[in-house]
Amino acid sequence: MAFLKVVPLEKALEVIDSFPLEPKVERVPLEEALGRVLAEDIASPIDVPPFDRATVDGYAVRAEDTFMASESEPVRLKVIGEINAGDSPEIELGPGEAVYISTGAPLPKGADAVIQFEDVDREGNEVIIYKPAYPSLGVMKAGADILKGKLLLTKGTRLSFKETALLSALGMAEVPVFRKPKVAVISTGNEVVLPGEGLKSGQIYDINGRAIADAVRELGGEAVFLGIAKDDCESLKALIEKGLECCDLVLLSGGASGGVRDLTNSIIEELGEVKIHGIAIQPGKPTVIGLIDGKPVFGLPGYPTSCLTNFTLLVAPLLRRLIGRESEVRRVRKRLAHKVFSVKGRRQFLPVRIEGDKAVPILKGSGAVTSFVEADGFIEVPETVEILEAGEDVGVTFFA
Amino acid sequence: MAFLKVVPLEKALEVIDSFPLEPKVERVPLEEALGRVLAEDIASPIDVPPFDRATVDGYAVRAEDTFMASESEPVRLKVIGEINAGDSPEIELGPGEAVYISTGAPLPKGADAVIQFEDVDREGNEVIIYKPAYPSLGVMKAGADILKGKLLLTKGTRLSFKETALLSALGMAEVPVFRKPKVAVISTGNEVVLPGEGLKSGQIYDINGRAIADAVRELGGEAVFLGIAKDDCESLKALIEKGLECCDLVLLSGGASGGVRDLTNSIIEELGEVKIHGIAIQPGKPTVIGLIDGKPVFGLPGYPTSCLTNFTLLVAPLLRRLIGRESEVRRVRKRLAHKVFSVKGRRQFLPVRIEGDKAVPILKGSGAVTSFVEADGFIEVPETVEILEAGEDVGVTFFA
Repeated sequence: MAFLKVVPLEKALEVIDSFPLEPKVERVPLEEALGRVLAEDIASPIDVPPFDRATVDGYAVRAEDTFMASESEPVRLKVIGEINAGDSPEIELGPGEAVYISTGAPLPKGADAVIQFEDVDREGNEVIIYKPAYPSLGVMKAGADILKGKLLLTKGTRLSFKETALLSALGMAEVPVFRKPKVAVISTGNEVVLPGEGLKSGQIYDINGRAIADAVRELGGEAVFLGIAKDDCESLKALIEKGLECCDLVLLSGGASGGVRDLTNSIIEELGEVKIHGIAIQPGKPTVIGLIDGKPVFGLPGYPTSCLTNFTLLVAPLLRRLIGRESEVRRVRKRLAHKVFSVKGRRQFLPVRIEGDKAVPILKGSGAVTSFVEADGFIEVPETVEILEAGEDVGVTFFA
Repeated sequence: MAFLKVVPLEKALEVIDSFPLEPKVERVPLEEALGRVLAEDIASPIDVPPFDRATVDGYAVRAEDTFMASESEPVRLKVIGEINAGDSPEIELGPGEAVYISTGAPLPKGADAVIQFEDVDREGNEVIIYKPAYPSLGVMKAGADILKGKLLLTKGTRLSFKETALLSALGMAEVPVFRKPKVAVISTGNEVVLPGEGLKSGQIYDINGRAIADAVRELGGEAVFLGIAKDDCESLKALIEKGLECCDLVLLSGGASGGVRDLTNSIIEELGEVKIHGIAIQPGKPTVIGLIDGKPVFGLPGYPTSCLTNFTLLVAPLLRRLIGRESEVRRVRKRLAHKVFSVKGRRQFLPVRIEGDKAVPILKGSGAVTSFVEADGFIEVPETVEILEAGEDVGVTFFA
């Protein structure tokens, strides 16, 4: 404790990056894979289609048998059978023979073309062909769509319906995905109550608990919202221990008062080790980060916008690492809509809303709920800068 | 049946629009509201904050008592109590009095400013103030963030963590959202099997079932995948009836052969009414649409890209209507990356991939699974057009 002091953001990120958490892999049924993140590269285990397949209804033939066909001198082939979609044909086509075949059915041995039935005539067990067919006419060759062994999807892909459909086409009933990190979320504050409870004088409804829990879920994690701890050691310690029991990490957001930070600090000290005690950014100075039995515990600021900003800067990268989405881009460049003032010597993060190619600063003060609801993300104003002019090029980091 | 013929797309959309389905509203717990679509406008039922609130730790005072304060002639006020966050203060401040107050605590009656404790001195039960405080210093007024009655969220909003956090701040334990339409999904084809089953000669794995079910889920519906019907009347009828029993609408995708369409047609005829029997678009001619006991039944084409294109054109607008998201924009304008040829007299939809400001046509044929997996959406080539030149401005509709 004695050695801990406010550290630069980069140092805090280094510490978080060194936390002993690794992405874990699980196999889920394909029906539950939508939205999950692929944990392995996927190469096709089969040819698609797995066999030479008729793409029209008609007659499977040996193309060479038809090369001499013309309107005036049609070729007659003997129809020796019929193959429907789903059939496993035993038939083998000899010279001068044809087979009636339906779309999607596998070509019989010997055949290399399918002539659509509209282009031929049928007389008894003979089909009359008026023009030559070339090999592969009316046929989708085995593997023409996807060759066995071809790399199709890479590790880290978030599965949309297009990817689940592709995995279905490959016959994959189970999919290797990154396990969702389990995140305990705790709100604090004697004045904070949950929606649904009546609001007594002096009380306000919780904001951060819902915001953080749902931001975790949007990121691809599993959130366990443990409710609200009072500003006392027993209440806070009980919920932190509950979180450590059931989850991979624990996120607290401070009440408005500074007391929670000190309590969190001493509980982490008692149960584990405080790693970061304040970060040299605004907002974020009150942020506390520790490790208990290998599990990270974050004490985030109480003001909603500050809480979300610190969650985005510190916790989201860790969660992305755990679900294999480290490379996800969550930044855009925009032009500042109007001048903003900062304080020299303070590294500041300001909420902004994006409108077209503009970043519009939202200057309501960090205490306002509405500032983060109206914001899309934030910009950084470095220590050395006092004024950012309208029109300046700024990098916007999206919340969470 | 006798009067039914291939109709223009607009006619089909009109028919679908007239289907007797209405959005339904349900109330869900706030914890389950993430990703759902708001069914009512939300105005704030309370002021946020609900009371005048200290934004710093310090002393609540009557500002006028401090107007004469200076370094040389500080003002001394009598500290008559302490208010912490969550307290419901009974204290009323008289002239010459102050109260110790913590951040987030409600101001006592009579007080209108909070001076941070760093700016004052304390001696016994007196606080010594060295400069004037103005009214509202260190105070967030009741309703300063959100005024009671203010319209905050509008019907049709898809709830992200920002909106659920806002609803939490308003104390809303339950949220009115549009009920997820329940959609039965049926694949067909004697040659089609589900992933996990072994692939026998002549068989292929299902694609459309997974694609459609997961596209429905991404749109905000609830998909019930009923599996694969064989190309026979009993099998198909059994699954359609099962779908009608448990769901609001039924989606079938044809096997590769045309037979399923005729079967679907006659089953709809038997149980209800065929409304559309083919649409004058490519792909989409084999699409069948009917109504059974007020529930729509769609028979979509079998080829994956055709199936997805028709799902996007015909079914997605209906689902969006049912979840209150009709206005959702799913189109962008791009420049065609290279020349494409179409057939005059045929209204064609071609899959494209978006790369920067370009739409890159994917010309693999509709039978390929990979074409819709690689595509982001499709462009339309009108009947009158044979060639679209590279660089031409095209509207891209995203899949689903």
